[in-house]
Formats: sequence, C-alpha cells, structure tokens
Amino acid sequence: MSNNPFWSPELNQLKAYVPGEQPIGKEAASPVIKLNANENPYPPSPRARAVLADKSLIDSLRLYPDPQASTLCKTIANRYQLKSEQVFVGNGSDEVLAHSFYSFFKRPEPLLFPEIGYGFYPIYCQLYQISHHSPALREDFTIDLAGYARPAAGVILANPNAPTGKYLALEKIVQLLQMHPDRVVIIDEAYIDFGGESAIRLIPDYPNLLVIRTLSKSSGLAGLRLGYALGQAHLIEGLERTKNAFNPFPVDGIAQRVATEAIADQAWLETHCAKIIATRERVCRQLATLRFTIEPSLTNFVLAKPPEISAQALYLALRQRNILVRYFQQPRIDDYVRITIGTDTEMDDFLRACKDILTG
Amino acid sequence: MSNNPFWSPELNQLKAYVPGEQPIGKEAASPVIKLNANENPYPPSPRARAVLADKSLIDSLRLYPDPQASTLCKTIANRYQLKSEQVFVGNGSDEVLAHSFYSFFKRPEPLLFPEIGYGFYPIYCQLYQISHHSPALREDFTIDLAGYARPAAGVILANPNAPTGKYLALEKIVQLLQMHPDRVVIIDEAYIDFGGESAIRLIPDYPNLLVIRTLSKSSGLAGLRLGYALGQAHLIEGLERTKNAFNPFPVDGIAQRVATEAIADQAWLETHCAKIIATRERVCRQLATLRFTIEPSLTNFVLAKPPEISAQALYLALRQRNILVRYFQQPRIDDYVRITIGTDTEMDDFLRACKDILTG
Repeated sequence: MSNNPFWSPELNQLKAYVPGEQPIGKEAASPVIKLNANENPYPPSPRARAVLADKSLIDSLRLYPDPQASTLCKTIANRYQLKSEQVFVGNGSDEVLAHSFYSFFKRPEPLLFPEIGYGFYPIYCQLYQISHHSPALREDFTIDLAGYARPAAGVILANPNAPTGKYLALEKIVQLLQMHPDRVVIIDEAYIDFGGESAIRLIPDYPNLLVIRTLSKSSGLAGLRLGYALGQAHLIEGLERTKNAFNPFPVDGIAQRVATEAIADQAWLETHCAKIIATRERVCRQLATLRFTIEPSLTNFVLAKPPEISAQALYLALRQRNILVRYFQQPRIDDYVRITIGTDTEMDDFLRACKDILTG
Repeated sequence: MSNNPFWSPELNQLKAYVPGEQPIGKEAASPVIKLNANENPYPPSPRARAVLADKSLIDSLRLYPDPQASTLCKTIANRYQLKSEQVFVGNGSDEVLAHSFYSFFKRPEPLLFPEIGYGFYPIYCQLYQISHHSPALREDFTIDLAGYARPAAGVILANPNAPTGKYLALEKIVQLLQMHPDRVVIIDEAYIDFGGESAIRLIPDYPNLLVIRTLSKSSGLAGLRLGYALGQAHLIEGLERTKNAFNPFPVDGIAQRVATEAIADQAWLETHCAKIIATRERVCRQLATLRFTIEPSLTNFVLAKPPEISAQALYLALRQRNILVRYFQQPRIDDYVRITIGTDTEMDDFLRACKDILTG
C-alpha cells in the first residue's frame, strides 16, 4: 500500500485495524444469538434505567459535563474503599488503556505482555511507537513469570486473561510488582467480577500498580463506554494530565449519571454475575459431554476446542445457524472457539446447534 | 517541579492543563448566570428528548455501539450533500481535533495557527511533540495571510475565530488551501452556524481541506460530547485508522441516537441560532451605549472592552453578582471580557449589572 502524502509518517506506518464483527441489529433477517463479544446477556441495573426517565436530563445537556466526573469518581472510590484521587474515568477502558500507554510506557525498553492476551495492546504500541516483547505462555496457557524478569518499559496483562480465561493468583502479581519496582504494572481486570480476586487491595502497598476496569462486561453497559483506572494518586494525576491535553470532557453527562447508578447497585452486579457463572459451569459440563476440550475459565466466556471438526468449521457452521462465536486465526488458539456465556435459553440453543453440527 | 519516575518522559514534559471554570450546578447558593463557556442557553431539539423516552434504549446498552456510527454519519452526510465516507465522528470535537493533530500534523515543519485562537491547539502540539508558529493578527484581530506563506506541517484556524469572533471570508480560506496544497488545512467551524459561510462547499475541490464541527454550541449539546470532521474520503480514512488504534467505539449508543435526531432537526437549529443572533445584536448595541468597545462577532459570544475599569475588575465584579463571563490573562486581549450570549432575560440581568458596576 502506498503512502498518503497528507498523512503523517506515524499514520502511514499504522496498520489498518478493523474493529470486531459488526453488531447485527434489527435489520438482520432472523434473530441472532450473539456470543462473540463477551457482552452481558442481561440489561443493566434498573437504577440505570431510572436515570434516563429523569425528564430534566436532556436539558442538562446544553452545559458541558463535569470534567472531573466528581460524583462518579466518588462512587467508584467508595465501592473499593479508595479516595477520589485514586480513581480515573474514561470513555471505555480502551481510552483509559490508550492514555496509560502514553503516560507510562513510552520508554526505550520494550513493554512486556503475554504472547496471547487482549489484541489491542500491540496496537497501542504501534500508535505510540512503543516496542514490545511477549513471553510465551505455558502449554496450559498459564503465565510463566520467568519471561518477565528483564528490563522493561512496564508490564500489562489481563487478569483473568483473554481469550484464554486463565487467572493469575495475586501472589504472582505481587512478584511482578516487585520485579519492576520502578515501572508501572497494569492489571486489566475486565473480567474479574466473574471469579478471581482483584488486585485492588494491593494498591496501598505498590506505587507502581494500576488496575483497569470496565462497565462493558459485568455491568452490562458495553454501549455506554465507561472504563476506569485505580491506583495511587501520583499515577492518577499522570493520567489526568494526559487526558487534559487530549479531551478534558471524555465522559458525557448521561454516561456519568448512568455509570454512577450502575456502580452503586452492587447487588445487581452480584446477582447477575452469579447467574452467568452458574450458566458457564453448566455449559462447560455439557461441552465436555460433547467431547470438547475446555479451558477452565474465570470469565464470562469459555475457550473450547471441538472434537473431530476444526474450530473454523464449527465457527462457520454456527454462523450459518445465526449463532455468532469468536474464532481467532492466530497461533496456538486456532483450534479453539471463544464462546461468550449468554442466557440459559441462548446457551441451550447453542449446545443443541453444536450437537447437530457434530453429529450431522 | 520534579519528575515523576513512573511517568514517561513525554508525560513529564507535559504542562498541567486545568480545564475551564467548573460548571456550577444546583449546589450553588444562588442561581448563576453562566456566560463563560459559549454554551447554548436553550435546551436541545425535542427530537433529542424523544430518544431518551424510548424505554428500549437502556436495554440496548448491554451491546457495544456501532463502531462506525453509520446512521449518525449518514444523517450528517445527508445534511451537507456529502457521502458517509466523507464524515468522521468523535467524542466531542476535542477528540476529533486530537486525532487530526496526530494524523496530519506530526511532521518536522511547524504547524501554523493564529496568535490568538482556540487555546487547545498549542496543548495538542505539546501532547504530540509538534512545533508551531503563530503569525500575529492585525490590529483589528483579523487574520493576515502573509504570515502563512512558509513551509508548514499544516494550518489550523477557528472560523469564526475564538475568542475574537472574527470571520475570515471563504476566498481567504481558498488562498490558504492553495498556499499549502500538500498539507492539511483544518477549518474549525465550532461557531459557523451563528453567521459566516461554511467552507464545506470547498471540500470537493480541495483534497487538503478538513472542516471540523461540534454539537456543543449551535445544537445545545455540550454535555453530549459530539464532534465531527468533514473532508475527502482519504482524509477521513486516515482519521478512522488513528481512531481504530486508540478507541474503536468513541461514541456511545445513546450519544449516537441523540446526535442523529439533533442533526436531523435543522429547523430547531435555524430558529434558535436566529434567536441568539438577534440577542447578540441587541446586546452589542446596548454595550456600545454603555461605552464598551465591541468587536463585531459572527459567533454566540462577544469580545468587549469596558470603559474606565479594567476587564479583570469587571470580570470579578460580575462574578460577585453570580454572573460568569470569561477573562483571558493573555497579551492583546487582557483588556477584554468574552461574554457568551444567553437568553434575553439573562442578558438583561447582565446589562443591568454592567451598568451598576460602571456607575457604582
């Protein structure tokens, strides 16, 4: 592809990245079971609904939103027994991650992240011209810390990891933090509410720890675009400074209020995560009965290898039946499909389709 | 200030920027007349209100939004007789500007923008390490093109300009585009709906023209965070590529729908802009009667120099009366206050306060 003379040299070297499969809306010919983007099958807390019913909401939009999102930050801080100055909010955890790469990882050494992980990390590296090194995972997809003992710009990993679903115990996170005392270690906890223990309680002891969260998965608000980072105040201050040089008002007036209510409704989150976990365990048992190889998962998805047919063939056969799962054409995981946990009814349809495909 | 060892070198060199005065909400002791952020005094189109009343809206938020914001882009394209691939949308025009700086202006030569203009341009330059040069304005604050005839990374200017309110005629924009045929020229038209003619009609003829717009001013939706860029498809493709490496879903599901309705309601926009223009002309006449020096404006604000007292003294005296205007401690304009045009009632209160202060 030839260069565009109007584009900056950085933009000309940036690979075109196409975001995941288009959401298929009402316009689709027949209903689709969407198990491909780790979205929550349940609509969000009724408290979020109440915000939109407030008739004064629309009038408030003529004014700029609070650039500090003070009420939202305070609500998040309260939930985790932190202070507001230990909370940074952004337009989805993708934006929070982007600002974090700029703020902490633009350094001469390579950034470290696992061979298999969130596919966006290498893209941020391209955007900001950060080099990276990706230590191999063990045979069972768990993280081997030996590969992380080297000079680095920092470390980032999703915990539990995606798309493997594997959880790294907190004592291992502590080892990582101690290996890199003068570099930031980011733990991306997009899926932590579906099992595993959060690293948030390590924040008071580790000035180099940043935990990133999202409302897209466990809160059922992928469409709202709200992510946040938690860490000691000096890291949050760095993120604020970057944000204030990019877009001082990243979280709009509606999103601030909806997110505040969703976060305050801890009971909703616990009930619905428990439901998804129960469905996940049942689906895993039934997939095992169908002779799938299952990777145990602490997330709202399962990585599963079908028997007899290839993962790609299963992906395509499910697609023909209007069931979307995710297939990665990528070394080590191209024998697997990633299946988001939907409602029980959706998963029954999915399991029935798998059975049909495998026995047909 | 000493360096923070966890911050990247780029972040350590970035000056802390504090976004404009906090919006003062219901918690303020007495009502405030807010004429300091060029917000619209009128709540947005009733069609925007109808979106929030749709009870299925909240349920749709469990899914990711359309990353291409297709319906919104098509609505914007239709409004200006463009194609969807000539439209880029973002989380406020601030985000659109940030991506534009990265995409087009990261080059060895300096970026050119007027001595006085939108205060964020030099901040983006800092963020992305872009050098800049700012040709002086004429005595009457108009732009002298002579200063722009030099090698450059590109040109950006607000038209009408802020905070001067001065409009640059399209024939001058054409001269700029022809001066820099191999560089992008951005015309930031945040205030164009309050007078002046848009450069949009030049897009078919100029592959180097990018026009940036916002819903924050004339559409009364500063709290929604929606901005857009218009230009030939190859420039929009560059912005998409940058966006997809930063945050593929910058416009949330609610904002896409509210913005679509607001843009489709052209009649609302015309009626309310006409109202604000009529109020502006009346306020200018009355300020002249009070012996203010007025800079003629084609925006929703006026730059005005008080007689006898300093601009700062007037700003503080108005503030004491709960009337907020903007004062810039900046060469050439520190004799002026910038007054946003509010409702007729708000402006009557403002004018009465000015009279009191000047005669008191």
